[in-house]
Amino acid sequence: MIQIMSDRETGAFEQFAQDVRPEIERRLTAYTQFDAGCPERLRAAIRHSLLAPGKRLRPILVLAATRACGGDISAAWAPACAIEMVHTYSLIHDDLPAMDDDDLRRGLPTCHAAFDEATAILAGDALLTRAFEILASEIANPQHAARCCVALAHAAGASQMVGGQADDLAAEGQPGDVAKLEAIHRRKTGAMLIGSLQMGAIVADGNGEQIERLAAYGTGLGLAFQIVDDLLDFEGNAQTVGKRTGKDKDRGKLTFPALVGVDESRRRASHLIEQAIEQLAPFEDRGDILVSLAQFVLKRNR
Amino acid sequence: MIQIMSDRETGAFEQFAQDVRPEIERRLTAYTQFDAGCPERLRAAIRHSLLAPGKRLRPILVLAATRACGGDISAAWAPACAIEMVHTYSLIHDDLPAMDDDDLRRGLPTCHAAFDEATAILAGDALLTRAFEILASEIANPQHAARCCVALAHAAGASQMVGGQADDLAAEGQPGDVAKLEAIHRRKTGAMLIGSLQMGAIVADGNGEQIERLAAYGTGLGLAFQIVDDLLDFEGNAQTVGKRTGKDKDRGKLTFPALVGVDESRRRASHLIEQAIEQLAPFEDRGDILVSLAQFVLKRNR
Repeated sequence: MIQIMSDRETGAFEQFAQDVRPEIERRLTAYTQFDAGCPERLRAAIRHSLLAPGKRLRPILVLAATRACGGDISAAWAPACAIEMVHTYSLIHDDLPAMDDDDLRRGLPTCHAAFDEATAILAGDALLTRAFEILASEIANPQHAARCCVALAHAAGASQMVGGQADDLAAEGQPGDVAKLEAIHRRKTGAMLIGSLQMGAIVADGNGEQIERLAAYGTGLGLAFQIVDDLLDFEGNAQTVGKRTGKDKDRGKLTFPALVGVDESRRRASHLIEQAIEQLAPFEDRGDILVSLAQFVLKRNR
Repeated sequence: MIQIMSDRETGAFEQFAQDVRPEIERRLTAYTQFDAGCPERLRAAIRHSLLAPGKRLRPILVLAATRACGGDISAAWAPACAIEMVHTYSLIHDDLPAMDDDDLRRGLPTCHAAFDEATAILAGDALLTRAFEILASEIANPQHAARCCVALAHAAGASQMVGGQADDLAAEGQPGDVAKLEAIHRRKTGAMLIGSLQMGAIVADGNGEQIERLAAYGTGLGLAFQIVDDLLDFEGNAQTVGKRTGKDKDRGKLTFPALVGVDESRRRASHLIEQAIEQLAPFEDRGDILVSLAQFVLKRNR
């Protein structure tokens, strides 16, 4: 999309992502073994969606925030996996016939398409539940564990992610403006990015100013991310993006390109990313990966 | 149903339930205010299901377990409310058209019947999420908070409640025996009763033996509870029970009366309750409410 990255800057995030993804995948796999009480079909449905090729953006945000706050990355794997599970549950439920009714996700059939509706609902429920179990049992410091549970629950709850999805559905086919659209995406996408950063900071014992700056960074990043998502749907094709494109328009969804045009959408995304990066100045070199990640969001093509 | 209770014994549980229910209702109401980010329709759907007249059996189990372990009941309100939220979320999702397709619950239209399917899915999701937020933010001791999150997540997760529901759906119209039926209910109903008792013991700093005995009590109680539920569906009428009756048979569900007959079902429930009560001996007087509650399960008519 928009190319504002030097090769060096691209390298920081992509190198980090490449380094950490195998361990994220290994842990997501291990965390969804479950014991004999879990029916095989349910386990298969959970893994179908969770282990499908994904960007793992939220886990990487957790890890990068821990690093930015000078913490030990080994404490960050549990929240990194937990947030990916919550993200995946939200995709499974959003894709259901009663909601967005999508049949393609991450390049594969959606959970209800590959299995059935009941199994997809239960797979989402199980992933959400497992996320909190992992936070509470795998974070050694119980204070950090409890704070991460609060941060994740807030980000994923009725006032944020779930509320944003409800308003997004209600807004379909309704007139709207940029303020309304931003309010939806701040909750539907932004809150979970902020939650990722907060959990990364919590396990690193980050201070109040650091958490505040990371939240401001996450707000800009989230909105830019969503604008780019809208642009990809508007311009993209299903093969690159890994899910159906052009659906937003078909469904009468509010989108940035529809409201302000493609060029203005790009300008806004670019400006938001600049502002987000400014928040990272006090982290100095330790914020490099977050800087590079923000720039990556602008140029991603899926 | 079966009358084996003296008036004195009936009194202990019913008096306790009457004493604590107003505070449970007050807190459930307060915990689902949500801030302005929560869409009004979503909030209404959550409250429609959560605040409908319910027995509040699980919250009362939490409180009674805290008391049995000699703990301060003020620490038990948060897990009491959290387990009721998870129970309610499970009812909302189980009632969906893709699952049990029920239109009546607790004497009111089910969530998707009163609102719509998407709102019902999201209301369930929000309740599950809020439950963990309450445990993590309202239990002052972070170690207790984390342990309660683990206990609740285990009880509600893929190997227990969600797995039991998946197997229950898969068993419809299939041949089955008592062992299969018990395996389903141990996970679908029993695990959440055990989880209630465990959380009550955790916030009371109960010891290992106490937790083990409460779990054994909960196992018997859960199975007896389910046998009575089957009997109520088999014999009952919708007005008393508050949900459609006779549906199990229509749907080809495995039930105890269908497998072993009404009399043998009653005998089993009675025997399970006796065994459950035996586990409570070391708690002496402090276990009175749990003894009385177990006896109440046998004679409940809704």
